Amino acid sequence: MKTIMVNGIERPLDLLNQSKGKEVLIQLKGDRQFVGTLLAFDMHINVALDNAKEMQDGEVKKNIGLTFLRGDTIIFISPASMSG
Amino acid sequence: MKTIMVNGIERPLDLLNQSKGKEVLIQLKGDRQFVGTLLAFDMHINVALDNAKEMQDGEVKKNIGLTFLRGDTIIFISPASMSG
Amino acid sequence: MKTIMVNGIERPLDLLNQSKGKEVLIQLKGDRQFVGTLLAFDMHINVALDNAKEMQDGEVKKNIGLTFLRGDTIIFISPASMSG
Amino acid sequence: MKTIMVNGIERPLDLLNQSKGKEVLIQLKGDRQFVGTLLAFDMHINVALDNAKEMQDGEVKKNIGLTFLRGDTIIFISPASMSG
Amino acid sequence: MKTIMVNGIERPLDLLNQSKGKEVLIQLKGDRQFVGTLLAFDMHINVALDNAKEMQDGEVKKNIGLTFLRGDTIIFISPASMSG
Amino acid sequence: MKTIMVNGIERPLDLLNQSKGKEVLIQLKGDRQFVGTLLAFDMHINVALDNAKEMQDGEVKKNIGLTFLRGDTIIFISPASMSG
Amino acid sequence: MKTIMVNGIERPLDLLNQSKGKEVLIQLKGDRQFVGTLLAFDMHINVALDNAKEMQDGEVKKNIGLTFLRGDTIIFISPASMSG
Repeated sequence: MKTIMVNGIERPLDLLNQSKGKEVLIQLKGDRQFVGTLLAFDMHINVALDNAKEMQDGEVKKNIGLTFLRGDTIIFISPASMSG
Repeated sequence: MKTIMVNGIERPLDLLNQSKGKEVLIQLKGDRQFVGTLLAFDMHINVALDNAKEMQDGEVKKNIGLTFLRGDTIIFISPASMSG
Repeated sequence: MKTIMVNGIERPLDLLNQSKGKEVLIQLKGDRQFVGTLLAFDMHINVALDNAKEMQDGEVKKNIGLTFLRGDTIIFISPASMSG
Repeated sequence: MKTIMVNGIERPLDLLNQSKGKEVLIQLKGDRQFVGTLLAFDMHINVALDNAKEMQDGEVKKNIGLTFLRGDTIIFISPASMSG
Repeated sequence: MKTIMVNGIERPLDLLNQSKGKEVLIQLKGDRQFVGTLLAFDMHINVALDNAKEMQDGEVKKNIGLTFLRGDTIIFISPASMSG
Repeated sequence: MKTIMVNGIERPLDLLNQSKGKEVLIQLKGDRQFVGTLLAFDMHINVALDNAKEMQDGEVKKNIGLTFLRGDTIIFISPASMSG
Repeated sequence: MKTIMVNGIERPLDLLNQSKGKEVLIQLKGDRQFVGTLLAFDMHINVALDNAKEMQDGEVKKNIGLTFLRGDTIIFISPASMSG
């Protein structure tokens, strides 16, 4: 049930906290998109990803590996397994 | 009566607080639009949505599911049931 | 007399305070324009509107109803009854 | 003498303070221009204007009346009587 | 000798301090350029100019007179007598 | 194993800390790309690189050598040896 | 040896500190480029240059002389003697 999954999200950062160690989709300004394993984030929404891949039209454009993303350029972060 | 519905909105964030658990329409810069259930927000207007869908011309473009949206890119948030 | 109307505006936010409960015109960056009843604002100029309508060329483009607008995207706010 | 006119401007905001109650020309980003009577300003350079008019090519494009302008979008403010 | 002129510039704002009362060239974002007498500045690099002129291709486009410039839009400020 | 490599990344800046002295790929806004040895960074994500090279389409466009990069313009930083 | 030159750079600003009195290349947003002698900088990366020249395609476009540059518009600063 969906209700179980969103359990415990009282602040937006709780969602990121629950996504640690999982694959996330990160949309950046300027149409860049990454998928990767969320290792860490901070209050500026700076993010550390492992096994990051830059995506284009749903396909892997480039393997980046470990990556630090500045929060300033991020539009949204979504646990990738939820995408439909 | 409308007066009853807007009851209790003394600060703009009160409107978001009343919208928790409800479907909202979120307009982002760069013409992106999401609908989804508002789970949480913070003072930076970072937002956690459940069952988020990216919209285009009133139709669902993509199901995103659980999503963290950075407040920085948000133009407006509106309880979706109010749209006409 | 005009002098009576602007009475009491010592800080810019006084003008917004006097506009509460009244219809305002809000110009956003990127040529978006809203009219609606000003319910609330804060020091970031985040705004809650009731009965908001997105305008285009002086005509209603879309009824949005209750809306939270992020101050970051606002250019100006004007009591609509003053427009000529 | 010019020296007399600029008397007392030790900080940039002193110029705005001396312009209260006078007509000013305000240039916004994105080529918008307003003239109006400066009622009030704050440290963010948010501004309240009375009898504001949106200008285009030196002609009145629209009467806006009382207006709150967010400082964020302002490029310059100039006492209008000084323009040549 | 150049060494004498730059004497005493330990912080960037020292350069502006030494330019008070002198003609400066101010380059704004979006290709706007002003010359005028620097009356005052603050830590946000807000600036008050006297006898300001908007320039285009090295010619006076418009006399603006007394002007308040928001620091946010400024790229560089240069004592005009130094230009070559 | 990947698990060993990401050991110790609890905050995004830990990833940068582990990359000191190593070659990194830095993507800037506006499609600029640098590779170089990461000497230092601060909390604004300002970065000092040694032996920096501006890249274009995977080829060296210009040798810049020692360089200070303002964090404001950075999109992502990735240990170059991880790229695929 | 390179190792000697980068000695003592523990924070990014150390690189700027070591560049005082030397010629630097400064890349601004919007493709502006300056070379000049670095006189001073502050924590906002505001910079005072002496003998500044605006460059275009590696040639001097304009002599600006003493110049104050707002940090906000700076992409990178590099000791010019290091360029290749």
